[in-house]
Amino acid sequence: MGVFSDASNYAGNPVEEQDEIAKELIKRGRKVIKLSRGDPAVYFKTPKYIIDAYVKALREGRSQYEYFYGAQELREAIAQRYKRMYALDLNVEEDIIATNGVSEALIFLNNVLMNRGDRAIMFRPFYTLYKSLLEINHGKALYGSYDEENGWAIDLDHLRKAVKKATRVKYMLITNPNNPTGTVLGRKIMEEVVDIANDNDILLVSDEIYDEILFNGAHFTSLAQIAKGTRHVILNGASKNFDSPGFRIGYMIVPGNDKISKEFKERVVRYAQMRLSVNTPAQYAVAEGMRNVKEHRKAIKYMVKEIADRTNFAYKLINESKYMDAVMPNGAFYVLPRLNIKDIKIKDDTEFAKRLLLEANVQVTRGSGFGSKNHIRIVTLPEKEIIREAMERIDSFCKKNK
Amino acid sequence: MGVFSDASNYAGNPVEEQDEIAKELIKRGRKVIKLSRGDPAVYFKTPKYIIDAYVKALREGRSQYEYFYGAQELREAIAQRYKRMYALDLNVEEDIIATNGVSEALIFLNNVLMNRGDRAIMFRPFYTLYKSLLEINHGKALYGSYDEENGWAIDLDHLRKAVKKATRVKYMLITNPNNPTGTVLGRKIMEEVVDIANDNDILLVSDEIYDEILFNGAHFTSLAQIAKGTRHVILNGASKNFDSPGFRIGYMIVPGNDKISKEFKERVVRYAQMRLSVNTPAQYAVAEGMRNVKEHRKAIKYMVKEIADRTNFAYKLINESKYMDAVMPNGAFYVLPRLNIKDIKIKDDTEFAKRLLLEANVQVTRGSGFGSKNHIRIVTLPEKEIIREAMERIDSFCKKNK
Repeated sequence: MGVFSDASNYAGNPVEEQDEIAKELIKRGRKVIKLSRGDPAVYFKTPKYIIDAYVKALREGRSQYEYFYGAQELREAIAQRYKRMYALDLNVEEDIIATNGVSEALIFLNNVLMNRGDRAIMFRPFYTLYKSLLEINHGKALYGSYDEENGWAIDLDHLRKAVKKATRVKYMLITNPNNPTGTVLGRKIMEEVVDIANDNDILLVSDEIYDEILFNGAHFTSLAQIAKGTRHVILNGASKNFDSPGFRIGYMIVPGNDKISKEFKERVVRYAQMRLSVNTPAQYAVAEGMRNVKEHRKAIKYMVKEIADRTNFAYKLINESKYMDAVMPNGAFYVLPRLNIKDIKIKDDTEFAKRLLLEANVQVTRGSGFGSKNHIRIVTLPEKEIIREAMERIDSFCKKNK
Repeated sequence: MGVFSDASNYAGNPVEEQDEIAKELIKRGRKVIKLSRGDPAVYFKTPKYIIDAYVKALREGRSQYEYFYGAQELREAIAQRYKRMYALDLNVEEDIIATNGVSEALIFLNNVLMNRGDRAIMFRPFYTLYKSLLEINHGKALYGSYDEENGWAIDLDHLRKAVKKATRVKYMLITNPNNPTGTVLGRKIMEEVVDIANDNDILLVSDEIYDEILFNGAHFTSLAQIAKGTRHVILNGASKNFDSPGFRIGYMIVPGNDKISKEFKERVVRYAQMRLSVNTPAQYAVAEGMRNVKEHRKAIKYMVKEIADRTNFAYKLINESKYMDAVMPNGAFYVLPRLNIKDIKIKDDTEFAKRLLLEANVQVTRGSGFGSKNHIRIVTLPEKEIIREAMERIDSFCKKNK
């Protein structure tokens, strides 16, 4: 037995693995362009009405521990949001649990379900944390795939085969809109996924944290709209749609009232008790963020318009480059270009990302961190001039290594 | 293999297990006195200068993800605090990790260290979460004891024997000032504990979250002052001393630079990466809370004077009762009276706490949740009139069940 846990070998987040090097470079005076972290608040001011609500909560003395389930006001606002947007009727008292970001919701999901050797189905490319949070809980990933040749849609034949052979599958996890590809799943494909989950009695989990960041004509379908009768969980939060990642407000929705869903909720709540409370005043800020529909519509409309513009600009420059190709995004704020690695004298995406930071001072995330070798993930939030500058640096970095 | 993880059988927090019942009673119009949760902000307004700093951080746009290690300003303020209070020299870049309360620090501790069947030494009575957070990580508790006959001091003979027989011990965890007993460990005893840890090469962890809430002439010694050369970890946070539990700001200090301590820190940080960030503006609020020594001294002086007064009052009433006896607290804000259970026709502390809530509408925490059967933990934060009312209700509840 070692000094440390085996589980801790799997801990970490590829998105942040170069942050310490980037900090060091900045300290030495280098102008580093960070396209690694999906943080809208770096580029868009958090809406004033949300900040005002946060301040109000603080001035009113909301610095006590909140109820471990989450503040009543927040859970009510979430229920109203799902009623308004997806015609979903939620039981405020039982179906919604506030979490420290979606990260904690994912932690709870794995905590409650995984025994050593249990499996979860996720799709490649996946969001980095899905894999590490599964593996620190002794679970094993089983991969379906998003098909790059088909606009990153789910490869259903591949999925059906994979599920058929699989045993001990505890959940299947989809992301919509997708991180890292920025694409949105079509309703028909999702209905097929629901059927597959249903036929195989697999809990279906949908991470929908970018569900209002849609453009280029995307049609988004929430799992909530089509999964009635199938056991399912929806993950969401305020970080992206409400432009407040530093508040750390996420939530888990479990609409089912069957015996297993009920026990699942009870067990999640017992984990929630062990961290006592989510940040209290932030919960009231986000509740107001959701309740004030008029202000929110204004803010999200502006932000999404800008994100669309910047993302399309990044997409155009990427596809103009000889060294990269990408599928066009229509949601979230990422592009996942494939590197034409044969034309570049660099071993793989890991080395590419490492040297790109050191030599061209652009920080991106290696695709292998998302299970997608020889790709890189680019955050498309910065102003166009910054994106242009970054793309020029990437292009001349590639040229140098031709 | 079941539907749920084995680990999740161990999840939960006895402090909160009656919260849903209490909520229900309050909804039905009952005047429930809650003496269960140690939340100073319910009874003392969080100092204005801290709220002002929080508001300032929000107005300045601090709603982005923070560095996973914690904000530089906060880590600097923590280092200054430990320099000022305990003459400890910390490396700001490496030795301090901000966490979502001490709860998350405890989660990381267990995540990084425990393999199935590994052990941790804790002392009975322990803080509820020590046991559950160990067990959900497949660890087993090995109990030393705080001796009630000896003012809840550590029973050193018992500890030496227990350690001698033990294998696979990953850490030993003390709490000072103590929750649930409200007592403070003497320096000599702590030095003995350090020696025992050192002789047996056991990582020593000290939870010192109440280190400024001292009265009745208590002399507090931080592990930081006496553990040089012994591998150790200190846990602390803003919830109690800075009266802001709802901010969820805790931290872990690892002063060592030996190879194992260094790797320990690296592994903790990889867990921190997976939840991206602690609430950002709250970190700046707490940084100011610590930096503004003058304002803090005023606030803590007032709060501790009141807590001392209320705790001594509760202690007096408890010892006047025929049904309870307690050791006098000199820190934190709890008393852990022993129930003279033979004089009461109630099976044990669990049933006592349950029926006390239902029949007398006083919520306390059962001692067995702290590993101390036939005791109850009483929070001594409320105003004296409330404490008097609660004690009268407890006394007449006991009388009825004589």
